[in-house]
Amino acid sequence: MRINGRKEDEMRKVRITRNYTKYAEGSVLIEIGDTKVICTASIEEKVPHFLKGRGEGWIACEYAMIPRATKVRKVRESSRGKVDGRTMEIQRLIGRALRSVVDLNALGEKTIWIDCDVIQADGGTRTASITGAFVALVDAIDKMNRCRRFKEYPIKDFVSAVSVGISREDEVILDLDYIEDSEAKIDMNIVMTSAGEFIEVQGTGEKRPFTRDELNILLDLSEKGNKELIRMQKEALKENYLLTKK
Amino acid sequence: MRINGRKEDEMRKVRITRNYTKYAEGSVLIEIGDTKVICTASIEEKVPHFLKGRGEGWIACEYAMIPRATKVRKVRESSRGKVDGRTMEIQRLIGRALRSVVDLNALGEKTIWIDCDVIQADGGTRTASITGAFVALVDAIDKMNRCRRFKEYPIKDFVSAVSVGISREDEVILDLDYIEDSEAKIDMNIVMTSAGEFIEVQGTGEKRPFTRDELNILLDLSEKGNKELIRMQKEALKENYLLTKK
Amino acid sequence: MRINGRKEDEMRKVRITRNYTKYAEGSVLIEIGDTKVICTASIEEKVPHFLKGRGEGWIACEYAMIPRATKVRKVRESSRGKVDGRTMEIQRLIGRALRSVVDLNALGEKTIWIDCDVIQADGGTRTASITGAFVALVDAIDKMNRCRRFKEYPIKDFVSAVSVGISREDEVILDLDYIEDSEAKIDMNIVMTSAGEFIEVQGTGEKRPFTRDELNILLDLSEKGNKELIRMQKEALKENYLLTKK
Amino acid sequence: MRINGRKEDEMRKVRITRNYTKYAEGSVLIEIGDTKVICTASIEEKVPHFLKGRGEGWIACEYAMIPRATKVRKVRESSRGKVDGRTMEIQRLIGRALRSVVDLNALGEKTIWIDCDVIQADGGTRTASITGAFVALVDAIDKMNRCRRFKEYPIKDFVSAVSVGISREDEVILDLDYIEDSEAKIDMNIVMTSAGEFIEVQGTGEKRPFTRDELNILLDLSEKGNKELIRMQKEALKENYLLTKK
Amino acid sequence: MRINGRKEDEMRKVRITRNYTKYAEGSVLIEIGDTKVICTASIEEKVPHFLKGRGEGWIACEYAMIPRATKVRKVRESSRGKVDGRTMEIQRLIGRALRSVVDLNALGEKTIWIDCDVIQADGGTRTASITGAFVALVDAIDKMNRCRRFKEYPIKDFVSAVSVGISREDEVILDLDYIEDSEAKIDMNIVMTSAGEFIEVQGTGEKRPFTRDELNILLDLSEKGNKELIRMQKEALKENYLLTKK
Amino acid sequence: MRINGRKEDEMRKVRITRNYTKYAEGSVLIEIGDTKVICTASIEEKVPHFLKGRGEGWIACEYAMIPRATKVRKVRESSRGKVDGRTMEIQRLIGRALRSVVDLNALGEKTIWIDCDVIQADGGTRTASITGAFVALVDAIDKMNRCRRFKEYPIKDFVSAVSVGISREDEVILDLDYIEDSEAKIDMNIVMTSAGEFIEVQGTGEKRPFTRDELNILLDLSEKGNKELIRMQKEALKENYLLTKK
Repeated sequence: MRINGRKEDEMRKVRITRNYTKYAEGSVLIEIGDTKVICTASIEEKVPHFLKGRGEGWIACEYAMIPRATKVRKVRESSRGKVDGRTMEIQRLIGRALRSVVDLNALGEKTIWIDCDVIQADGGTRTASITGAFVALVDAIDKMNRCRRFKEYPIKDFVSAVSVGISREDEVILDLDYIEDSEAKIDMNIVMTSAGEFIEVQGTGEKRPFTRDELNILLDLSEKGNKELIRMQKEALKENYLLTKK
Repeated sequence: MRINGRKEDEMRKVRITRNYTKYAEGSVLIEIGDTKVICTASIEEKVPHFLKGRGEGWIACEYAMIPRATKVRKVRESSRGKVDGRTMEIQRLIGRALRSVVDLNALGEKTIWIDCDVIQADGGTRTASITGAFVALVDAIDKMNRCRRFKEYPIKDFVSAVSVGISREDEVILDLDYIEDSEAKIDMNIVMTSAGEFIEVQGTGEKRPFTRDELNILLDLSEKGNKELIRMQKEALKENYLLTKK
Repeated sequence: MRINGRKEDEMRKVRITRNYTKYAEGSVLIEIGDTKVICTASIEEKVPHFLKGRGEGWIACEYAMIPRATKVRKVRESSRGKVDGRTMEIQRLIGRALRSVVDLNALGEKTIWIDCDVIQADGGTRTASITGAFVALVDAIDKMNRCRRFKEYPIKDFVSAVSVGISREDEVILDLDYIEDSEAKIDMNIVMTSAGEFIEVQGTGEKRPFTRDELNILLDLSEKGNKELIRMQKEALKENYLLTKK
Repeated sequence: MRINGRKEDEMRKVRITRNYTKYAEGSVLIEIGDTKVICTASIEEKVPHFLKGRGEGWIACEYAMIPRATKVRKVRESSRGKVDGRTMEIQRLIGRALRSVVDLNALGEKTIWIDCDVIQADGGTRTASITGAFVALVDAIDKMNRCRRFKEYPIKDFVSAVSVGISREDEVILDLDYIEDSEAKIDMNIVMTSAGEFIEVQGTGEKRPFTRDELNILLDLSEKGNKELIRMQKEALKENYLLTKK
Repeated sequence: MRINGRKEDEMRKVRITRNYTKYAEGSVLIEIGDTKVICTASIEEKVPHFLKGRGEGWIACEYAMIPRATKVRKVRESSRGKVDGRTMEIQRLIGRALRSVVDLNALGEKTIWIDCDVIQADGGTRTASITGAFVALVDAIDKMNRCRRFKEYPIKDFVSAVSVGISREDEVILDLDYIEDSEAKIDMNIVMTSAGEFIEVQGTGEKRPFTRDELNILLDLSEKGNKELIRMQKEALKENYLLTKK
Repeated sequence: MRINGRKEDEMRKVRITRNYTKYAEGSVLIEIGDTKVICTASIEEKVPHFLKGRGEGWIACEYAMIPRATKVRKVRESSRGKVDGRTMEIQRLIGRALRSVVDLNALGEKTIWIDCDVIQADGGTRTASITGAFVALVDAIDKMNRCRRFKEYPIKDFVSAVSVGISREDEVILDLDYIEDSEAKIDMNIVMTSAGEFIEVQGTGEKRPFTRDELNILLDLSEKGNKELIRMQKEALKENYLLTKK
């Protein structure tokens, strides 16, 4: 049993609310336990400079927290005048994850902006962002598809992400909350497709190195978590014909 | 009748949810029609440089919108590397309004950080921020008071804010939504106490100058709106003994 | 009698010097008592990005103080790398005030840059900036008109601004100097046209709220001040045929 | 055979030159094929703000490229006024890797600054930086140790890093050069200790997802690479008594 | 005869107005022809970080132009968010020039801020700044001296600066105005003491290299110019007992 | 004899290594004693905004030091978010020096970026940068010439730079190293062509003013130094037909 009463391989309660705000083409509130992230997908009719004239689209991601999403108030990045390294790392990760399941050529010369704004942070904000943003992305692409049908539906697969780790008590645990995360010896974030293949594997020995055997147990556990998350995504998106047919 | 079906002196539906997030000392979601703002109040055990050693406290305010709070996605201020003029103007206004009803000497050498993060913007975000932030501020000060009772309770009065204006059709209207606001000829924001006195009066002739008579009708209307808002604040805060006794 | 020997409704000595510097299309030194501001109007043959291709013009305003315009040297905004909130608020106010009396369509696709640089600050720099910048603006538009006559003269009315307030001694006073301003209980800036209508009303209860009656007396006083200022503008511009004919 | 003539599990030629520049406490030029990085370790007699007064030390890392280290000149980050996301990600990785093998308590209240400046970039600059910076770090700590002997020698283990990947031709390859890296389907960076345990595992499906089997082969290969690199580090540091005795 | 009607060795009319603004400890308007610079000297009761606790003072210099000091409006450095290279070069030059004639030890732990704000720029703004700022500096130090007499008067000598150059017509000319400066083949700025010794010599072959003979003629001419300027400074400061006694 | 054992008019050992890195069109390592600078020249097929459409080329220069090029680690300018005044001054000097010997019209609409990155700084980095960058520039232009022969070879002359000064012991010395430079009373940097004419003369009385006679002796010495440097450049470039034929 963990300090939060969960079993080692037990995820927190997940809730995905679509159409959370009214303006964005895709807008999702994802709640994983007390972690709450608003994920929006916005369509812009142009691409970044480096892609101009190539007929391809782009998915750009930004991540932020409201200042009191955390236990101690964090100074706003707009006040500090710059985005910090952790934020950059996370928004790059979200971008890679989502782009990996989208056919950017099929999109045409458009940018989809993904914004993940953390309202409450209790561990796992980056994996919740990926999981929630994917649903917002599907909604936005669906909206585009209803306007002017894509020749080829641009989304190739589901993608979700989960954290796993080795706790202070040397237990292998799934879906770490904030306290577990801050004390974990080993910390991993795993991004997966619905086929159970890896998009991204990031593991760090925060307090000590880890062995190949430990890595293997952690990867097994992440597979279980991601399966559950993709099932939740499918349920939330159930009426989405084109994607779930896949 | 207005385009949104309201009467000229009719406000939108107001909802104030306290304890909206779990970490902040005060945390309020205020909804005024489709305008939604998360207002948090955070206590910091020090004051800004210019107040050090004077025994006084400070109330610092920041305001932001998530990028897709608006119809068209707005570039993040953290990505642009600077806070724009509109944001600065708003956070200065919120700060002045809240400080006007707090006895900063009674606070002691502490800063209360007020963060107003707009989740959905449908007009009147700055007035909603003041009205909601006041409730968060009371909760935070109340929490401080429960820990170590203030000699003198620092909040001196209620404060709320409302917008009034003259519409495209030359009607005097209360609580403008986004469409009304963008077409208004005259636009005012009025901050008031529970005694019906003014803290701040800001009126702009956006499309034409306005007369003294027009100003008077607008001020009358703002009084009606602010009365309703303060009634809502009192209802939301009902168990707050010290303040409502006042 | 006030601490500076003026009567309650007495303005400081006003002096408007046109053609103060030699390069700008309009260049005015305005002195209101010891407050001295250089206001220049510069014509640029293009408009900001958001107006391109719409045939309209723009009036852009910037405000700054030289570091020792004030009693204590103020760090340069260029050294700090950003413009502070007060400056932004002021330059936005000046811009709104001047644009309110100009027909931007009649201007054509041009920007007129208004720069207000405070040489010496003894209270009322924002209102002096508006009053002086209007004269520089007329000179610049006049110069354009001499080159290629406008179909419709773009300036629709005079505009000036004045401060009024309630002093530490609870007297209602006109045109506050620095010491009066820093101690005032209520502080207002009022922007008006020559017809005595309002462009902008900004009043703040700095030390206490204010009543409707107090507001009314302050507005009366501001009317007196603005009338005097517009008379000074007319005198300074007397040979300007097109405007004064209006 | 690869396009560069190497076998699949063959690393490029590695050369580690100690004392490359004369001022730094540790200064190493590491060359891995045509990738050349200057790694310096500098001792500063204080710690960052967040560690003050706790008796612990810190290792801070910065990474940069000279503008023409790359095929196309890259704009200097100092000219752009900010550090980009890739740089931040890399310097955070280097920092975590080095801190993982150092006992920061044993260091005392000192910061060791690690600077990795890429002179020529032909793939694998982040892994070369880790491998080279470790040697510079040992030299700096050794110098500290000669001045005032540590009670406990602060370096606990060797650490090195290598890249592995799956090429365009679906071959599993070790130590990717720039062309291989830009075309790789799967790209991994693996940081290891001398015991063959993991400090950090980062794998990305750049062009397609990857399976558990592929991951396993890649990890095997990285073990081979890191063993060779640590052998090179040991050889370079051979006279370093305290470390190699371990 | 030059295009401006001056003889080759003829300076423009120089006017030095002391006490130009009322707050600064020293405040000078220097006019050299149409070039006008406000130079203020402000005393701050602390020194920059790098001098703390050493008992020495510092002279810090900043230089700026109001946007329309020039023929074409220059974007404000505060709006651009950074100071440009030309400005930095000039303020470093002014600082070195003034510090060279002041005994910083005699000053004590104080900073004198020199601000040179160009109101109108018609060539030679950096040399006018040095010449005018010196007078403001003397006034500020004199004011300090009247409060608490220095053991040793900190100003050791007069300092002034002038520009010389070789014109488009290959004439050697003194005190270039803007047109001459922009067309000059060779351009020099020479900073001198009252003894006719050099503090700084900066010569640039803008359009062609220059010979030793040309350099010599230019230096002769600069001596004549600086003598006149120092005579003007002495005249302006005539009642300043301590300095002129020297 | 100097503290470093050199005679007063003796330069340090100079070594110029061409093709130091593999990507840049011109790439030189210049070593002057312990001062080491990597100078690269990169061709960009466009010109800065202010030159567009005029058929001319441009030479843009940037200068930086790796953080531990110096005795005490210098904070990276990219971390500080801005380039400091010394750096700006140096890169402007290098730019002027190189542009003075190139016919920018003959270049066509191209920019040659010169990057001088100091690896080790032991005095004279700006003069070493000019001397080394010239060789890199010739190599880059030569490469352009081999692709598409210039009608007129754009390089008009050699250019080099050297420092001279008056030491603490009042000796006139050539090519100051770091210790000499930090203690020098007078410090000069002289940029010259192969004909012995001046491109730039910059002399500063760091600790005291200097006389015309001292200036003359310093200039004589700089001529000797620059002759040696241009001889080294010619030797390094010997196979460069077009230039050395000149």
